[in-house]
Amino acid sequence: MDENALFYECGFSCDNALFLKLGSEAFFITDGRYTTEASSLISNAHVLEGDRGDLLKTARLLMRKSKIQTVAYNPLEWNVERFAKLSEKLSITFQKRPNFSQQKRIIKTEDELRKLQRAAQFGKEAFDAFAKHLSALGEGVDEKRAFFEAEMLLKRQGSLGLSFEPIVAFDANAAKPHALPTDSTLQKGSLVLMDAGVKYERYCSDRTRTAFFDGTLRFEKEQHFSDTQRQKVYDTVLKAQEMALKAVKVGVKASEIDKAAREVIEKAGYGRYFVHSTGHGVGLDIHELPVISARSQAIIEENMVFTIEPGIYLPNQFGVRIEDTISVRSNGAEIMG
Amino acid sequence: MDENALFYECGFSCDNALFLKLGSEAFFITDGRYTTEASSLISNAHVLEGDRGDLLKTARLLMRKSKIQTVAYNPLEWNVERFAKLSEKLSITFQKRPNFSQQKRIIKTEDELRKLQRAAQFGKEAFDAFAKHLSALGEGVDEKRAFFEAEMLLKRQGSLGLSFEPIVAFDANAAKPHALPTDSTLQKGSLVLMDAGVKYERYCSDRTRTAFFDGTLRFEKEQHFSDTQRQKVYDTVLKAQEMALKAVKVGVKASEIDKAAREVIEKAGYGRYFVHSTGHGVGLDIHELPVISARSQAIIEENMVFTIEPGIYLPNQFGVRIEDTISVRSNGAEIMG
Repeated sequence: MDENALFYECGFSCDNALFLKLGSEAFFITDGRYTTEASSLISNAHVLEGDRGDLLKTARLLMRKSKIQTVAYNPLEWNVERFAKLSEKLSITFQKRPNFSQQKRIIKTEDELRKLQRAAQFGKEAFDAFAKHLSALGEGVDEKRAFFEAEMLLKRQGSLGLSFEPIVAFDANAAKPHALPTDSTLQKGSLVLMDAGVKYERYCSDRTRTAFFDGTLRFEKEQHFSDTQRQKVYDTVLKAQEMALKAVKVGVKASEIDKAAREVIEKAGYGRYFVHSTGHGVGLDIHELPVISARSQAIIEENMVFTIEPGIYLPNQFGVRIEDTISVRSNGAEIMG
Repeated sequence: MDENALFYECGFSCDNALFLKLGSEAFFITDGRYTTEASSLISNAHVLEGDRGDLLKTARLLMRKSKIQTVAYNPLEWNVERFAKLSEKLSITFQKRPNFSQQKRIIKTEDELRKLQRAAQFGKEAFDAFAKHLSALGEGVDEKRAFFEAEMLLKRQGSLGLSFEPIVAFDANAAKPHALPTDSTLQKGSLVLMDAGVKYERYCSDRTRTAFFDGTLRFEKEQHFSDTQRQKVYDTVLKAQEMALKAVKVGVKASEIDKAAREVIEKAGYGRYFVHSTGHGVGLDIHELPVISARSQAIIEENMVFTIEPGIYLPNQFGVRIEDTISVRSNGAEIMG
């Protein structure tokens, strides 16, 4: 099972476990490698060892013995083979509940907000450290090396994990929303896009900055490009982000936030180059609910946490994205970090 | 779809694609981010963009138009929700073929063996570099820091990927086969277990060494522990690995190799502390076929590549594992790296 879903249910997770809730009783089924640790850390569920390592067999036994008639599951998490093994020949109705764990997690507790805030703070510090470091390395450093250095700084001597593989892209490579590091090198006048996040106590940060390298790199939101087209694109994305941030209010539709950003970019004539949605929830997973897109049905509530990250990508030229993770407060968006 | 399965079929992969083979025609369906690159790199399949980003819709259309009656798929790779969307209301029989890509890949080509050998060589070098480095850091360094340094050395300035998150465990933490790094520190007399691998041109290496830290760390197989119990456990695991390596021959059952290792450990009275199977295949995936376990039905063939990694884990005391990745040659096991 998805480790973050497990962790959210019982405060512990490992790479081979099943969490089964039957009425008022909950069971954490795992194998011999993890039972000791699980037993000492889990208080809200019985910890069981799978029969000869067979977790599904044990789960089936528990379901058969119980009087439960319906069990909800996440059909995105169970592969066809495993689900067949779990459910075959059981007189139980298995109810599809796509992402039900993420649904449960959509409103963050104050404790979760604190951890997310801390993660965002560490993330921000890594951006500033990277800007200094890349400035010191200077012209000629390639994306692969820059990527490697970014990873090092984000991880803080191994004390933090990564939310995802960071993106460090120069110029044309920044036009790919999911750029992989190449051998292309940093030059005076290069555009540098960095998208990165860390995990603090399992909670993720997510942030993107695009900056002009004039021999020095700074990740402030105000940037001055030598090229007027780049400046126009940058200012458009920045304006789009500002409008989206303003649109964040308790009770509005997520789609309205997307619209606020998209309108700015469309008016500037770059609509077709904003190829993704405006944002996504952030929590234990780097991509959680709500989705901030034109098609999203979500209504914004207090203590939701999500990104605002409009972008413009001009193929084979350059790309600009500006992203912050925000928490929804009674008075609107609060940028984390 | 699983990127390694995609790569094996057509020499290219990305994080959002479907490979569909209908008779003599093959199709690589992806989204707008990847079509350009895919078209330039894939020669054995038509590259298509999913209808408005909907890959499944396009796949369904192709299947409907074709006269194909049966399509094989990997039920371990498709989640319940996605497979339902792919297959609903189609008059096609979907045939479950668990891990069929891994089945195809179980015998390595000479080119694959070269890449695996190169990966193993890089992996080995990282172990030696780490031993030097940890010796220099010396007493007091904690597992998290050691883990971080191991990662750095394995990645070679970002030129190599990791097969998996390395394991660096001291003393009691080494008793957990899948230990996560803690704050516990290295001391003179500590036992150090390192399990790590790199990816070279997508092919994985996998290796484990357990060593005694007397102020210096060496990853030779011959180790001298100050404590007689540790020495006995270590020598037992080493002997078990030697016997398993000797048992590797074309035509034998994989289960016989597991037995060869297990018997040594059982005779020494540690049978119940050898909690996992003796080995697993290695290739594009870090865990491939064949499985080297008591229940495995596999028959060993030339040019299979798998690990031999017996271990003894004494809870809350220490653990020992010794692992090499080997290729099967006409004359038996050949250790890689």
